[in-house]
Amino acid sequence: MAMVFSSLTPVFIAIICVLIGLLLKSSKRNTKQEESKTHKKAASRPWVDEDLKDSTELHVEEDDDGGEWQGLEDNIVHIPFSMEHYSEEDMVKRSKDFYELLNKRRSVRFISDEPVPREVIDNVIKTAGTAPSGAHTEPWTFVVVEDAEIKHQIREIIEEEEEINYEKRMGDRWVNDLKRLRTNWIKEYLDTAPYLILIFKQVHGMLPDGKKKTHYYNEISVSIACGILLAALQNVGLVTVTTTPLNCGPRLRVLLQRPVNEKLLLLLPVGYPSKTATVPDLTRKPLEDIMVTI
Amino acid sequence: MAMVFSSLTPVFIAIICVLIGLLLKSSKRNTKQEESKTHKKAASRPWVDEDLKDSTELHVEEDDDGGEWQGLEDNIVHIPFSMEHYSEEDMVKRSKDFYELLNKRRSVRFISDEPVPREVIDNVIKTAGTAPSGAHTEPWTFVVVEDAEIKHQIREIIEEEEEINYEKRMGDRWVNDLKRLRTNWIKEYLDTAPYLILIFKQVHGMLPDGKKKTHYYNEISVSIACGILLAALQNVGLVTVTTTPLNCGPRLRVLLQRPVNEKLLLLLPVGYPSKTATVPDLTRKPLEDIMVTI
Repeated sequence: MAMVFSSLTPVFIAIICVLIGLLLKSSKRNTKQEESKTHKKAASRPWVDEDLKDSTELHVEEDDDGGEWQGLEDNIVHIPFSMEHYSEEDMVKRSKDFYELLNKRRSVRFISDEPVPREVIDNVIKTAGTAPSGAHTEPWTFVVVEDAEIKHQIREIIEEEEEINYEKRMGDRWVNDLKRLRTNWIKEYLDTAPYLILIFKQVHGMLPDGKKKTHYYNEISVSIACGILLAALQNVGLVTVTTTPLNCGPRLRVLLQRPVNEKLLLLLPVGYPSKTATVPDLTRKPLEDIMVTI
Repeated sequence: MAMVFSSLTPVFIAIICVLIGLLLKSSKRNTKQEESKTHKKAASRPWVDEDLKDSTELHVEEDDDGGEWQGLEDNIVHIPFSMEHYSEEDMVKRSKDFYELLNKRRSVRFISDEPVPREVIDNVIKTAGTAPSGAHTEPWTFVVVEDAEIKHQIREIIEEEEEINYEKRMGDRWVNDLKRLRTNWIKEYLDTAPYLILIFKQVHGMLPDGKKKTHYYNEISVSIACGILLAALQNVGLVTVTTTPLNCGPRLRVLLQRPVNEKLLLLLPVGYPSKTATVPDLTRKPLEDIMVTI
C-alpha cells in the first residue's frame, strides 16, 4: 500500500493542487471583484460623501398613507378647511410679486457681520417648520449657531475636510486647476455671518418603547422645508449660500451634540450681504425650458 | 499501473468528491446569501418604490464647487450684488406675516374643479425655478397637466398601483385595516383638480457630445424647488397635497413622454379647496422642538 501511495503521489498531489487552486481562485475572485468594485467606486467618485452612505437612508419609502403626505389619521378628527379666495386679478398680482421677490435671490458668499435681529431668525425657522413631511413626522432639526467660537470650529472642520477633498481630486482631474480650487476652500463667511443654520434630517425617530420609528421620505421632506426657509430669508432681505459640507457630517454632528439619528443635510450661513458682495453673472432657464404643458 | 489505480479508486473518488463538494458549497453559499438578501429586503420593505432604485441616484455627490451650490465659475464674470435692506422693524413684521401665511398651509385632498388662471400657474412654476441647485444645473421639469383625459389616465395608473401596494401589504401588517386603506386609494382629486403638476428630477443631463452630465444633488435641489413652489401656491390661495406616487414613476413618465433621465419625484394636484374640504386636526411641533441655539 505504501508503495502504491508513493508511486501515485505525484499524480495525486497534482490533482489535489489543481482542485485547491480552483477553490482558492474561486474564493479569491469573489474577494477581488468586491475589492475592485469598492476601489473603482472610491477612485471614480472622490466627491461621494461617505457620511451619507447609511442603511437608514430609506428616502425611497412610502409613507403609511399610500404616498400622500397626510398624517396618520387613525383617531384623528377631521375639521372643516377653508382659506382666503383671492380675485383672479389679485392672484395674478400676488404670484407675479412673489416671483419677482424670489427671482432676486442669489447664492451669496460675501456675508456682512452686521447683527440680525434674533426674532427674525426664529420666525424664518418657524416658517420652515410649516413644510409638509412624510406621515407628518416633521423630521428636521435646525441648529442655529451664533457663538463665534463654535462658528470658527465649524469653519476649521469644513476647511480641513474640503482641503482633503480637493487634494484627493487633484491627482485625478484637476491637477492644473489648483489656483481656482484653493480659493474655494477658504470660507470666510463661516466666521462673518451672524448665524450659521445647520439643518439635520432625522433619518428615524424613537418610539417610547425604544424602537425606531420610520421617517418616510425624510430627505425630501427636510429639503422641502429648506426651500421654504430660503423663501423666508429672501422675504426679509437676508442672504445665504446653500452648502452641503462634504464628509463633515459626523464631526459637525458631534461638535453640535446632535444624536446619531440626525444627519447633516445643509449648512446655510445667514446675514446681510457685505457691501462688496459679488455673484457670478448666471442666468436662469426660461419657463419653456423647465415647464411642459399637457 | 491499472491495478494500482483501481485499488486506489475509492480513496481517490472520495477525495475528489469532498473537494468538488466544497467547491459547489462555496459557490452555492454565495448565491444563497445574495438570494436571501434580496428576498429579505423585498419582504420586509414592501413600501419601497422600485422606481427609485437607480444607479444614477447620485444624490450624495458633491458639486464641483466643494459643496457650495454656486454655478461652475470658470469664465463666468462676477458682478456686484446688492439687495433691499429693510429696517429691523420691517424685517420682524415681514418674517411674522410670511410665517402666518405659510402656517395656514395644509395638505388638502378635496380640490374643487373651479378653473384657476393659467398665468398664476406659470408664475408659481417660474418661482420654483428660482431655487438653487447643485452646480446651477437646474435639474427639474414641471409637467403641468390640464387635459381631462390625461388626468384621468394618471388617476387610473396611480389607483391601480396603490391598490396593488395595499394588497401586498395586507398579508403583512394591515390585515385588519382594510376599510381605512380602501378609502385611501381612491383619489378623486386627480380628476377634479384643474391642474396636476408632476415634478421630475433630471438624474443626469446630456452634454453636446452625448456623454452624461452629472447632476449633483439633484433630488435635494428639486425638493428645495418644490418647497418654494408650495410657498408660491399658498401665497395665491391655492391648495395641494404633496404626494409621491409609489411605483408609478415609469408608467407616468411614459404617459407624459418624458425622457429616461427624468424620474418622477412628486405629484401635486392644484386648485381651490372644495367647499366641503376637511383636514385632519393635526398640530405642528413648537419652535423649541425643531430649533437648537448654540
